Amino acid sequence: MSSSLGKLFKVTSFGESHGRLIGIVIDGCPAGLEISQSDIQKELDKRKPAQTAASTSRKEDDKADILSGIMDDRTTGAPICLAVWNNDVKSADYEDTRHTLRPGHADFTSYIKYGGFGDYRGGGRFSGRITAGFVMAGAVARKLLENIGVDILAHTTEIGGISAQSMDFNEIKQNVDGNPLRCADTEAAVKMTAAIEAAGRQGDSLGGIIEGIALGLPVGLGEPVFDRIDGELAKALFAIPAVKGVEFGAGFNSARMKGSENNDPFGIENGKVITRSNNAGGVIGGISNGMPLVVRVAVKPTPSITVPQQTVDIKNTQETQLKIAGRHDVCIVPRAIAVVEAMMSLILCDFALQAGFIAETV
Amino acid sequence: MSSSLGKLFKVTSFGESHGRLIGIVIDGCPAGLEISQSDIQKELDKRKPAQTAASTSRKEDDKADILSGIMDDRTTGAPICLAVWNNDVKSADYEDTRHTLRPGHADFTSYIKYGGFGDYRGGGRFSGRITAGFVMAGAVARKLLENIGVDILAHTTEIGGISAQSMDFNEIKQNVDGNPLRCADTEAAVKMTAAIEAAGRQGDSLGGIIEGIALGLPVGLGEPVFDRIDGELAKALFAIPAVKGVEFGAGFNSARMKGSENNDPFGIENGKVITRSNNAGGVIGGISNGMPLVVRVAVKPTPSITVPQQTVDIKNTQETQLKIAGRHDVCIVPRAIAVVEAMMSLILCDFALQAGFIAETV
Amino acid sequence: MSSSLGKLFKVTSFGESHGRLIGIVIDGCPAGLEISQSDIQKELDKRKPAQTAASTSRKEDDKADILSGIMDDRTTGAPICLAVWNNDVKSADYEDTRHTLRPGHADFTSYIKYGGFGDYRGGGRFSGRITAGFVMAGAVARKLLENIGVDILAHTTEIGGISAQSMDFNEIKQNVDGNPLRCADTEAAVKMTAAIEAAGRQGDSLGGIIEGIALGLPVGLGEPVFDRIDGELAKALFAIPAVKGVEFGAGFNSARMKGSENNDPFGIENGKVITRSNNAGGVIGGISNGMPLVVRVAVKPTPSITVPQQTVDIKNTQETQLKIAGRHDVCIVPRAIAVVEAMMSLILCDFALQAGFIAETV
Amino acid sequence: MSSSLGKLFKVTSFGESHGRLIGIVIDGCPAGLEISQSDIQKELDKRKPAQTAASTSRKEDDKADILSGIMDDRTTGAPICLAVWNNDVKSADYEDTRHTLRPGHADFTSYIKYGGFGDYRGGGRFSGRITAGFVMAGAVARKLLENIGVDILAHTTEIGGISAQSMDFNEIKQNVDGNPLRCADTEAAVKMTAAIEAAGRQGDSLGGIIEGIALGLPVGLGEPVFDRIDGELAKALFAIPAVKGVEFGAGFNSARMKGSENNDPFGIENGKVITRSNNAGGVIGGISNGMPLVVRVAVKPTPSITVPQQTVDIKNTQETQLKIAGRHDVCIVPRAIAVVEAMMSLILCDFALQAGFIAETV
Repeated sequence: MSSSLGKLFKVTSFGESHGRLIGIVIDGCPAGLEISQSDIQKELDKRKPAQTAASTSRKEDDKADILSGIMDDRTTGAPICLAVWNNDVKSADYEDTRHTLRPGHADFTSYIKYGGFGDYRGGGRFSGRITAGFVMAGAVARKLLENIGVDILAHTTEIGGISAQSMDFNEIKQNVDGNPLRCADTEAAVKMTAAIEAAGRQGDSLGGIIEGIALGLPVGLGEPVFDRIDGELAKALFAIPAVKGVEFGAGFNSARMKGSENNDPFGIENGKVITRSNNAGGVIGGISNGMPLVVRVAVKPTPSITVPQQTVDIKNTQETQLKIAGRHDVCIVPRAIAVVEAMMSLILCDFALQAGFIAETV
Repeated sequence: MSSSLGKLFKVTSFGESHGRLIGIVIDGCPAGLEISQSDIQKELDKRKPAQTAASTSRKEDDKADILSGIMDDRTTGAPICLAVWNNDVKSADYEDTRHTLRPGHADFTSYIKYGGFGDYRGGGRFSGRITAGFVMAGAVARKLLENIGVDILAHTTEIGGISAQSMDFNEIKQNVDGNPLRCADTEAAVKMTAAIEAAGRQGDSLGGIIEGIALGLPVGLGEPVFDRIDGELAKALFAIPAVKGVEFGAGFNSARMKGSENNDPFGIENGKVITRSNNAGGVIGGISNGMPLVVRVAVKPTPSITVPQQTVDIKNTQETQLKIAGRHDVCIVPRAIAVVEAMMSLILCDFALQAGFIAETV
Repeated sequence: MSSSLGKLFKVTSFGESHGRLIGIVIDGCPAGLEISQSDIQKELDKRKPAQTAASTSRKEDDKADILSGIMDDRTTGAPICLAVWNNDVKSADYEDTRHTLRPGHADFTSYIKYGGFGDYRGGGRFSGRITAGFVMAGAVARKLLENIGVDILAHTTEIGGISAQSMDFNEIKQNVDGNPLRCADTEAAVKMTAAIEAAGRQGDSLGGIIEGIALGLPVGLGEPVFDRIDGELAKALFAIPAVKGVEFGAGFNSARMKGSENNDPFGIENGKVITRSNNAGGVIGGISNGMPLVVRVAVKPTPSITVPQQTVDIKNTQETQLKIAGRHDVCIVPRAIAVVEAMMSLILCDFALQAGFIAETV
Repeated sequence: MSSSLGKLFKVTSFGESHGRLIGIVIDGCPAGLEISQSDIQKELDKRKPAQTAASTSRKEDDKADILSGIMDDRTTGAPICLAVWNNDVKSADYEDTRHTLRPGHADFTSYIKYGGFGDYRGGGRFSGRITAGFVMAGAVARKLLENIGVDILAHTTEIGGISAQSMDFNEIKQNVDGNPLRCADTEAAVKMTAAIEAAGRQGDSLGGIIEGIALGLPVGLGEPVFDRIDGELAKALFAIPAVKGVEFGAGFNSARMKGSENNDPFGIENGKVITRSNNAGGVIGGISNGMPLVVRVAVKPTPSITVPQQTVDIKNTQETQLKIAGRHDVCIVPRAIAVVEAMMSLILCDFALQAGFIAETV
């Protein structure tokens, strides 16, 4: 395990899906930041299962619990430990199938790597539930970034093959909370919802694509040649279970463009150097260029489906069939949006500290 | 700058395109590994401009120079410093346009971040040339991996929108050296070559997609939840200038699949647990699962084109036009293949050390 | 703040003296280690104030609480979070003198560094109480080390200028628990006790010297040239509040010896290479040599004394006098012994993992 | 091996005593710093064997060679690679005794750890010669610190049991260059010289104590609880071969003081908070307090002596005698002073960057 992320703003994750709690320690948060439990809770609530066909029926009424590092609603400079305590845990659901590998899950790799000693209950350490910790830490990072004028937003651009129309940032911002799928294109959202409901009825699941945008970044975040802003963001985004691809700006599409199409011409607006297009997605040479940072992640369909699946009993090394019970999201895309925002906040905040845009005491 | 990568097998890059040398230090290489200058040179030669329309006319007759850490063709356990000395440097090419930002290059971000003090000659630290160091270090990592039965191969799957047909690993391996584009599909290679030549005649450039494959990986590489094998590979691959997207297995396509299609069913073959499909691309929960590791990277078209471009003179904050002279690859995909293999070797070797599959002395 | 220590066996500390808890996360502990709450409690109890004149009257009836990473008394490979919850906290003691700098404490440096936002109650993050977390983590590391035959022991060699006679390891081990000062020389312990009582009556305090010994270390722990076993141990030991010096083997005394006296001659015993003396203290070139590792730390006298002291009111930048109330140890040496053992365990365990002497699953 | 030190100002060491070069890469140096070859050479020359009985007769006419990261006498923000090329290498001296362990040297530990593959010539990677790299990197760090008003000085306080009288900083600064031993007490220096000459005649060697002082440090350097200024300095100083102890301020002597003697009373001078004494040595709670930082290191006597020694032939696991030939310093203390200053510069510079006292571009 290697459960820490970040250099100056470092988070350390702990906890399991069906253990006592999910927790996160933030080390390196500047002292003096105003932050209350409700600032953190607000982000955590975005990760909550919506009242929709898309989401798990597990009642995750998570409350952010501040265990250290914040006194009188201000950070003290000491490590901030945040937790959500696990309730409504039905571990028995997992006992029967303890050794039956769930396709698409980390059961097999975890079993081999940890010699069968890993916590298997509900995916244990590999559960999407650990992202609750990421989201709480992200709330703190977001506050620091807001103080220097950075605005972070993620939204659904595709579910089950249905794409949202492209829009500008303000439109997205206005529309994104209008439906539980967090899709700014209302019409597409209706179709996505229908697709999710259909998949749910079949005991199946859907994936999709999330786009994250950061506005107001100063020029100069990122520490090439290895600790690039794109590389570190990609690394952080792959830590969200189910992410299978990450691209910036024109991304994979840039592979099909000519240089004369893909290069973003420079210009001057209000005395500031800008680019006339943003195929780079706000990052060039691993460094932010002041344009909107645009990243997209591919989210695979939820692996937990009730359709019967061919698999293996790892204890007896025997082929078998599995029919998953339990409560699962048909499509985790809407809930993962809060996590994408959190990972972006964590990484951008760390780079802002490294480049001196955020001071040690704020 | 943050020029180190890896935890136990750590590389530190230094040098500039038009400085005295390009170098790399490998720290943490086990003692006793047999490795000669020619083992390293062999990899370096793969990065050499091919005698084709695709590549720069800069004569990069790079020779790998071993400065430390290897004695009598064996590693000593001490840091290994490898260098290529820069010759055939025409810095004067860059003097006139020193302050004219080249679109698609890091000139602007570098200028702001390093206060105008950065080495601007030929892209300086941001030049693709620094990957010569990555490739030399990758040669050492590859040797260590070969010793435990890991085979790494990258190939061109797309250039200028022309896709290669999908093939199995052995076919790819047989065909990949058959043409300078390192494309296993010979017919596609012919079309790609034509497209590159056409773009070159227009003073334009092309991008493409590279697929990297690792065979023979043990189950258990990767240190979740943050130092995952996919996350670390993505981070390393984004360090290749021009990479704009990274995906594993079905990648972005998995976002359009149903769970029942995307989940890889487990089965048993020769007493070993395998999966019947490989949409996961060999990684699940951030850990290698013993199936072929498959990663694809999107390479944007070379930003240096001779087509005139709108841009800005950063010294005078004034809009201007730029017509790039100098020698440049029309399409860097074929040369980047050696770099993709190198980055994969570096990361996989590091994880193999962390998980104890490679010992401290070999 | 930078609250993490270790590379493969990494601990992250959090919590404050008068906050809700003191905690520690261990990341990188191999899966499968048998460890129970009582194993951890046993070490924590060694840190408990003894029923002696030396120790604070704060009732620290600390119970180790396992929050994650251990299931059915075995480590799972996931991060282990351990906590002690703070009770019996009298923060009001500190309210009046909140801005009156306590000489010998971190009040001033903390105030400046954290802009006055730091938790001032009982020293907050700078309190010796945070070492409770170190001790709990050390208990896990010790278990791993015991499995490979390493035995760690610390004892009091000096208090208030009174030195214990030197003894061999077995004698020390037999005697060390015979008195609350953990001094193997019973006669010296009597004198030390008297000195502590006298200092206590004067409202004053005493320091001393602790020696830590590790037996059974394999040859080869330590990663020079910077991550040496002596350097990393020193760094870890300086993290114990009040430590002002660290030396190995003959230490400062070696500065007064000749080479012919100080060099440890090699010899062979039972087919194994040993040294005939141990002035090196078991470490040479930053690497363990298989002889007993011997380290000594200087512990300054407890800064909290009731004798009136000249100081400054930092809020008004005004000179003033301070008479400290509250409950404090006259001499923390006996309690710090458990912490010295813990820090040694943490560092040696990390190196044993790095050098492959402890596997990823045990 | 683990050859990197520092977090934001990170150095990576490479090279061997009898290899091609000794090198160092500095990663994270701010752009725009004025620094010339002669600035670096000046520090390197301080490490040169003086024309005295104390020093080796190997002619180390080292020239600092700038390989990257500096253009037109200014740092570019890119990694700075500095090297000295090895000449005057007499490796044959070491061939006969290749397997005869030299007492006090790392031959044995190195042999076991690196499986006999280590570079044995002149101590290889464990030679004091690698500190030439530290000193060159230190020269860059020192420049950055000078820019914020920090002054670093080390001097000899003891050799062969002969102590220098204590003096104030200015006196030390004036006197320290007055004799080749870099001892500010001229009378003591005479006696030390005699002692060194006597030891040399006997084929023996002497150790000593070096004190390092940093003036002008801002309050707030150091990142507790683990990355403390004292802990990191100690770790860095133990990387100097032959260092066996490190203490701050009153150090080991504080263990014999009472709290009322050891606590430094706070006062106000010129509107600034100061302490009336400096037993803390400028560091409290792991953070600089604005008073002079004072650290002392114990240097053991040079292990290479011509007196015959009992030892072991490691190849045949047989006891034998060794009579060392070759050229060696009788006492390395005077040459180690430049290295102590370098290590202090490196660590303090890193902390100044972390705490924002030095900007990314200077």
